[in-house]
Amino acid sequence: ITLSGKITFPFRAGIVTVSSARRATRTLWLLVLVSLPVCISVCRASSPQEDSAMENIVTEKKAEESHRQDSADLLIFILLLTLTILTIWLFKHRRFRFLHETGLAMIYGLIVGVILRYGIHVPRDVSNITLNCQVNASPATLLVNVSGKFYEYTLKGEINANEVNDVQDNEMLRKVTFDPEVFFNILLPPIIFHAGYSLKRRHFFRNMGSILAYAFLGTVISCFIIGLLMYGCVTLMKQVGQLGGDFFFTDCLFFGAIVSATDPVTVLAIFNELQVDVDLYALLFGESVLNDAVAVVLSSSIVAYQPEGDNSHTFEVMALLKSFGIFLGVFSGSFALGVATGIVTALISFFLRDFQLLETALFFLMSWSTFLLAEACGFTGVVAVLFCGITQAHYTYNNLSPESQDRTKQLFELLNFLAENFIFSYMGLTLFTFQNHVFNPMFIVGAFVALFIGRAANIYPLSFLLNLGRRNKIRSNFQHMMMFAGLRGAMTFALSIRDTATYARQMMFSTTLLVVFFTVWICGGGTTQMLSCQRIRVGVDSDQDNSVSSERRSTKQESAWLFRIWYNFDHNYLKPILTHSGPPLTATLPPCCGPLARFLTSPQAFENECQLKDDDSDLILRDGDISLTYGDITVSTDASGAHTSGGLAFAGASTSDDLDRELAYGDHELVMRGTRLVLPMDDSEPSFTEPHHLNIVDLSR
Amino acid sequence: ITLSGKITFPFRAGIVTVSSARRATRTLWLLVLVSLPVCISVCRASSPQEDSAMENIVTEKKAEESHRQDSADLLIFILLLTLTILTIWLFKHRRFRFLHETGLAMIYGLIVGVILRYGIHVPRDVSNITLNCQVNASPATLLVNVSGKFYEYTLKGEINANEVNDVQDNEMLRKVTFDPEVFFNILLPPIIFHAGYSLKRRHFFRNMGSILAYAFLGTVISCFIIGLLMYGCVTLMKQVGQLGGDFFFTDCLFFGAIVSATDPVTVLAIFNELQVDVDLYALLFGESVLNDAVAVVLSSSIVAYQPEGDNSHTFEVMALLKSFGIFLGVFSGSFALGVATGIVTALISFFLRDFQLLETALFFLMSWSTFLLAEACGFTGVVAVLFCGITQAHYTYNNLSPESQDRTKQLFELLNFLAENFIFSYMGLTLFTFQNHVFNPMFIVGAFVALFIGRAANIYPLSFLLNLGRRNKIRSNFQHMMMFAGLRGAMTFALSIRDTATYARQMMFSTTLLVVFFTVWICGGGTTQMLSCQRIRVGVDSDQDNSVSSERRSTKQESAWLFRIWYNFDHNYLKPILTHSGPPLTATLPPCCGPLARFLTSPQAFENECQLKDDDSDLILRDGDISLTYGDITVSTDASGAHTSGGLAFAGASTSDDLDRELAYGDHELVMRGTRLVLPMDDSEPSFTEPHHLNIVDLSR
Repeated sequence: ITLSGKITFPFRAGIVTVSSARRATRTLWLLVLVSLPVCISVCRASSPQEDSAMENIVTEKKAEESHRQDSADLLIFILLLTLTILTIWLFKHRRFRFLHETGLAMIYGLIVGVILRYGIHVPRDVSNITLNCQVNASPATLLVNVSGKFYEYTLKGEINANEVNDVQDNEMLRKVTFDPEVFFNILLPPIIFHAGYSLKRRHFFRNMGSILAYAFLGTVISCFIIGLLMYGCVTLMKQVGQLGGDFFFTDCLFFGAIVSATDPVTVLAIFNELQVDVDLYALLFGESVLNDAVAVVLSSSIVAYQPEGDNSHTFEVMALLKSFGIFLGVFSGSFALGVATGIVTALISFFLRDFQLLETALFFLMSWSTFLLAEACGFTGVVAVLFCGITQAHYTYNNLSPESQDRTKQLFELLNFLAENFIFSYMGLTLFTFQNHVFNPMFIVGAFVALFIGRAANIYPLSFLLNLGRRNKIRSNFQHMMMFAGLRGAMTFALSIRDTATYARQMMFSTTLLVVFFTVWICGGGTTQMLSCQRIRVGVDSDQDNSVSSERRSTKQESAWLFRIWYNFDHNYLKPILTHSGPPLTATLPPCCGPLARFLTSPQAFENECQLKDDDSDLILRDGDISLTYGDITVSTDASGAHTSGGLAFAGASTSDDLDRELAYGDHELVMRGTRLVLPMDDSEPSFTEPHHLNIVDLSR
Repeated sequence: ITLSGKITFPFRAGIVTVSSARRATRTLWLLVLVSLPVCISVCRASSPQEDSAMENIVTEKKAEESHRQDSADLLIFILLLTLTILTIWLFKHRRFRFLHETGLAMIYGLIVGVILRYGIHVPRDVSNITLNCQVNASPATLLVNVSGKFYEYTLKGEINANEVNDVQDNEMLRKVTFDPEVFFNILLPPIIFHAGYSLKRRHFFRNMGSILAYAFLGTVISCFIIGLLMYGCVTLMKQVGQLGGDFFFTDCLFFGAIVSATDPVTVLAIFNELQVDVDLYALLFGESVLNDAVAVVLSSSIVAYQPEGDNSHTFEVMALLKSFGIFLGVFSGSFALGVATGIVTALISFFLRDFQLLETALFFLMSWSTFLLAEACGFTGVVAVLFCGITQAHYTYNNLSPESQDRTKQLFELLNFLAENFIFSYMGLTLFTFQNHVFNPMFIVGAFVALFIGRAANIYPLSFLLNLGRRNKIRSNFQHMMMFAGLRGAMTFALSIRDTATYARQMMFSTTLLVVFFTVWICGGGTTQMLSCQRIRVGVDSDQDNSVSSERRSTKQESAWLFRIWYNFDHNYLKPILTHSGPPLTATLPPCCGPLARFLTSPQAFENECQLKDDDSDLILRDGDISLTYGDITVSTDASGAHTSGGLAFAGASTSDDLDRELAYGDHELVMRGTRLVLPMDDSEPSFTEPHHLNIVDLSR
């Protein structure tokens, strides 16, 4: 019995986004709170009864029912993941490579979505009461006085006016819909942290310049190219009359930013399995890790672009500068925070040894607190977590006991696996359960074309420019492969589902879903074909790869002076201070700082003086991926000789060969199926006996 | 500017609990929904403005602010845990045993609670608007129409009438207050699962009868004794005029149920460190694990005791029977569900090998789904998770690869550690931040006395009765120690904070907090003193302990026919079907079932035929806790000889010696600091060569 039905339906386009929480324009927090006519529309009502005990039981039952329903909903996802795991096992067992686990999770999600949408019709539940108070404010907390008892309500979000009537009908579908912030605050952080923690360090640093170029410059290029193309597409649509709502240039740019975050998890899994060229792997992985961070900050800066006054969708220099400032501020702030927490953790774990549970717990908590701290400070938690992960891998990892190193790796591997598959299965589900899809064929086709062009404008020109400086050229087949591997994944999805309040955002979300499906299934599934088509060598031993001296040399060329300065500083000062590895400070600091150096150096570092171990074992190395780069260190032994004998000489003469060698050392320590693998060493270099000796010490440790 | 203030204050005692969702009385879900005068009380209002863009920005800012605040609040807890870890490390480093990590977490929680309560005064925030609609229902969803836009609100819970005015004042304190269901649905499950997964199997089974007696009979006795004593206390208080609200007999019983769940985590940690007698350890640990389950189900049955009609607090046979039925139904249902999921996981992992990440993920997901399934079915998730953990340890564990065995153990160890310390630090915090404490000195004193008497009435009479049947008597010093080790912890807290709506429940909660603090600090801290006072041997090698043949023999006496039948069934049929260990089915089934047996037996089982390994290594064994029970298997070699040579003979002749031996086998495989420890074997038993040989095979595997 609808008792009162004064529901106003504002025009679709008039609804301005509310849930996107990132507009930075400083406006006075004026509260528009005057008591207004309040209308309560009660959807269904039964015989009124004033018995309060009865009422209580009803409320309790309702709460119990709701809890049960929540459990059942979560159970659906857990069973989906279980099913995915079982099927992946079958695939792995049969060496079936066309479908990655994430693609599979999406398919299962799709199936469950179809069932939920069309298969299950929940009978209209009496419990489903909707009160409709029309007031002039949306406070975070609402107190409702029900015949003397007070109930507290919290704001969940805005509802589209045309959905209001559906709220009851689609309760089931709404139930399996998560708060979009869940992705950003719970599921993405472990994925991103894992990526940072498992950056293949040596190859990452060797290709750092190129990776940074692709990730920063490339993402920005891609974002603007896609934005411009989409603006053209949207303008065309408007003239044809295909556009059902507003779509501003900032929306186009926003779309460009969110789809510029690549996530080639499928491709990289196959690369790992087939042992594809390590440099190609490093380029793709490094780019995808960093461009996630760039895309997040870029998209939030674009949202923050809000010219003052009424002309809110015109160009304004001040607003643009402000957006740019926000980009720089948020990115560098998040970066600094992540690195700072990583260093603090390294310092703590410097002292905290031998209690593995405590070490692991501390590592986990500190990494999590990075995220929270960044969010609390108004920076981007995901970006902070990424750089925290890289710092942890670089410093803290060396201070952990071997058991804790395994534990932390395994823990984040598991969290990453679960979160990733959850997101992808949710993606599949949401294609059918999301209520406000706007599939516009023209926009979708335009988006695919723009994506293709945007990716091409990222890879090919940058590769050309980079090849001017690189000795180890990025060959054209590598470029094609990188072009092909521009999959979109978890980050793009999380960014697009975060705000689906306006027509433009809904269309973006629907299109993004299709982009992810297409790229994961088609590009992911065609990786092996593409590899053989492009004649990219598989089964490459990085050892073999490196033995080509000319290639090796190029590293030095590539690692520019800036990077080399940083490397020397890191190797000589930061590592000794923050970790138990590296040379003791007494060797690297000038003699006048002797007492200070002795104070700051850990006893272990002195013990390890002859060993110079660097435990940055490559976290994502798999069985076949053994890199034996030892042979080519002989290229210049003079500096290395000085390095191990005289401390001071070393400090000065630290050359880029040290850099190469140290990075190479990291790869030696391999963990194969739980047992440490001692690599066979060939004793064919007499001029290099001392470091050779210590290398063995390191391995057999 | 409060524009309208029609807030009704019902009398305190008149507010009936709403948040406790477990009343089972079936009543029609009648909806009391008539449009009623709605009054909106707006706390503060500024200059009204109709600009909708402005409004949006306000809402966004509000959401952003709220998110930041949430991050900061969570950060407080993370930093608390970090601080706890650092201090524990210091304590462990200095071998300081008086304060356990949980006690420490409470202290830090207390300090932060004091600071939050008295130190920080958040200036009244303009954002904090509270709308007060007075309507006649509390639906789960509320739609609010704010000048054309719809906002959705979800029910958070009831607010005490006398709190309504404080809602704004104590925003800061309310912010750091978690939804009590968080404890039950997120923090308790890993703790309970870990307990089940790490039950020291061999000693647990040896003392199974006594443990079940203490856990079931003892908890019920303790619950009713405490309930009766508290009822006496409350009646006295009423006469003296000390009682400020209703306190029924069911409330007293409920209090008895929640404080009957012991949690001697502190004591057990010290036992582990000092290597106290394993039987005492098994008795205490087994009792505490199982009585948690009993207390949960018991308390929910007591809440469900609700005589029909108006006389809702009188005695009624039907309601009692119904409560009893609920107890049995919920307990057996949860038990069956937990065991069923465990068996399903075992069956799945039977096939799923060699992909450690998949194994671990599956194990985690299946264990979690047990909880969700039980909750969705209306059973008790925590109880289901406990029995799932025990089943997983018994069957699934044997099917996992060694790496996954380590991984799962470490994962749940970490989760348990974090959850436990979180709960205890929250306990400390909540002593100051909880807003409705009712500290009644008389009730508190009464509760301590009742607890003491209740525990005594549990331990001493039951021990006396059990000693009549046991050969390996529970000595009086063991009884005193068990009496002393009746600490209360996480479960008691979670049960008491779950519902704090009524006066009685608030008083219970405050008293429970004090009980937990007292027992954890005083009893936990005094464990070493108590041990030396009671002259309980420390540094006991379970080997030494078992070499006493008479004690050993007693196991057979103790393990009654029912248990022996189950054991034989389990050993001969369940283990071979569900795991890769145990004898092949072809050996245990009668010859007529040959084909079926061959079908059901895994190839590994045939390979292992001569090995008969049982990987149920004791999960909670620590470095010093090496039990070398090998020597005393020679007590009867006749049956064992038959056992390993002839398959069919074994099936018939499976005696209780097999039981002992098999349980003992489990202890051999020790994992010490990541490397498998090969125990030194003495070859002094010629009559037992064959099992001896295979034992070594098992260890060096």
